Amino acid sequence: MATEKGRTEVKELGEFGLIEKLTQPFTIHNETTIKGVGDDSAVIDTGNDFMVISTDFLVENIHFDLTYAPLKHVGYKAVVVNLSDIYAMNAVPHQITVSIAFSNRFSVEGLSELYDGIRAACDDYKVDLVGGDTTSSLLGLYISVTAVGRVPKSKVAYRNTARVNDAICVTGDLGSAYLGLQILEREKQVFLANPDMQPTFDQQTELVRKTLLPKARKDIIEKLAKLDVTPTAMMDISDGLSSEIMHITSQSNVGARVYEEQIPITEQTYNQAVEFQIDPLNCALSGGDEYELVFTVDQSDLEDVIAIPDVHHIGNIVSVSSGKKIITKGGNEHELKALGWRHF
Amino acid sequence: MATEKGRTEVKELGEFGLIEKLTQPFTIHNETTIKGVGDDSAVIDTGNDFMVISTDFLVENIHFDLTYAPLKHVGYKAVVVNLSDIYAMNAVPHQITVSIAFSNRFSVEGLSELYDGIRAACDDYKVDLVGGDTTSSLLGLYISVTAVGRVPKSKVAYRNTARVNDAICVTGDLGSAYLGLQILEREKQVFLANPDMQPTFDQQTELVRKTLLPKARKDIIEKLAKLDVTPTAMMDISDGLSSEIMHITSQSNVGARVYEEQIPITEQTYNQAVEFQIDPLNCALSGGDEYELVFTVDQSDLEDVIAIPDVHHIGNIVSVSSGKKIITKGGNEHELKALGWRHF
Repeated sequence: MATEKGRTEVKELGEFGLIEKLTQPFTIHNETTIKGVGDDSAVIDTGNDFMVISTDFLVENIHFDLTYAPLKHVGYKAVVVNLSDIYAMNAVPHQITVSIAFSNRFSVEGLSELYDGIRAACDDYKVDLVGGDTTSSLLGLYISVTAVGRVPKSKVAYRNTARVNDAICVTGDLGSAYLGLQILEREKQVFLANPDMQPTFDQQTELVRKTLLPKARKDIIEKLAKLDVTPTAMMDISDGLSSEIMHITSQSNVGARVYEEQIPITEQTYNQAVEFQIDPLNCALSGGDEYELVFTVDQSDLEDVIAIPDVHHIGNIVSVSSGKKIITKGGNEHELKALGWRHF
Repeated sequence: MATEKGRTEVKELGEFGLIEKLTQPFTIHNETTIKGVGDDSAVIDTGNDFMVISTDFLVENIHFDLTYAPLKHVGYKAVVVNLSDIYAMNAVPHQITVSIAFSNRFSVEGLSELYDGIRAACDDYKVDLVGGDTTSSLLGLYISVTAVGRVPKSKVAYRNTARVNDAICVTGDLGSAYLGLQILEREKQVFLANPDMQPTFDQQTELVRKTLLPKARKDIIEKLAKLDVTPTAMMDISDGLSSEIMHITSQSNVGARVYEEQIPITEQTYNQAVEFQIDPLNCALSGGDEYELVFTVDQSDLEDVIAIPDVHHIGNIVSVSSGKKIITKGGNEHELKALGWRHF
């Protein structure tokens, strides 16, 4: 451990700053390493094609709460969030490894439920569980999943290759996972105050489903392949649309113009946001955990791409000097910011 | 969580029983999956060659103790134990991912020390850090490392392919990592009782080094490749020589005869075991965390193989009906058991 004098707290750097500090001194030794730290997945040259590899760490009471998330759902989601990173490279996942550390609070039956969820995701996405590690923890459940996928070399989609005049598209609808989580947190407080109250989610089923059981956009990657369209850049939306567009534009050294009226927000999301007295647009721009895709395509491909159900054209890539802007329905321009451009 | 009625404790199944129960229901969807759960690494067909992938989870106070293990050493060892699994497939590691979860007890400086150790191992073994995840934990430090390597298809070494009459070889010397750990645990108790006492390890440097800073046997894999010898079966020694020989023989459906006098035990290990009043042979057979290799080769290759420094011929594979035996210096035969054939 560091001495107390000269001790720097991790929160002073933030997650991205910490990763930069820890990984910057590393050098690359192997010519099979095409892309290391800094994209949704790493890229390895196998000779014939690229293998992509991605890993996520899920920690109880940081990433999931067993008060309302069944273990089966946690297992399913742990796989899906990794597969989403593989699809975000325009690749097809084939294998996963799953390592778990768990306290003695967990029984064989509980862990079996977790693995039922992992297996359901493996079956839905046609991936194989090929390895892992199981060990004890002193407190709580820790799940580390690594996913491996394949992509033809000419089809890989990085973050840093968006070009001026490309169209920006997103899949699905945004803001719903964030609101689903708020609903679950509210019901948890109600339940803790009065354990006889059982929540009903009749009006919010889809929002709650999206946060507990997200889907990875396998379908979109398959449809893009069928069209023979390769996105010029792509990411999955895990930290929020604004944050991901900031990554793509910064790493590609370009700007962006995004139009509020084209951002997909469902009526249910809109109404729920209003009920919580938060701005629906802010939910859509800053809500994380969506696992939708944001990508850029050449304008000549746009007509084909937006014919795919669930794909929306939300803006365009512009020169870096034009900045990163959101244009409101009223026609005003605001700076796009990673943590929401209006305050909650 | 499972209901209390019908609750089965994990310890009732043990680690291998739990893994079997959790992973047995899974099916394989992809023809690129050559080997899943059940060897040192999974094996994936890339077309040209095989990619092998292995993962280990290291948990504070389960796998390492920061009272005596510097964070730099922990980082180094976390990488090495994974690379050892790659070498155990007769493969060459190229890439790793590292995910960590840590409590707010850890500063940026502490985590930098951990990554200094990770980087030192990457440089020593010429592997590239290509990804990972960093997150919070409520308590302690969790490290999940995944390693990826490559091997020509005809050269991969599984556990389940040892053949009757093959020679059994081990690398290095055995029992030292176990004794190194006992020394550290003893000194920890002394230190806890009297913090002014500082340990000196003058007489035990090599034992302590082996438990804190193990090496993976890259050198042996390179020398076997130079000889163009492919082991008929191979594992690394993480749970103890007896346990690994039991895995190889059970999975290969063969028996084994191992000779006490040929098991490599250094004078230092012998003397330290005697000081602790434990049987040196038992340390060598049952001590884990060695990261040496145990492998079988065709008898026609044996002369070349034992000419490699640090490779020892300790016995032979026999028919399954002949059982699994250790032959003592006195000529007595005992059953080889996974947890030591003499009691401590």
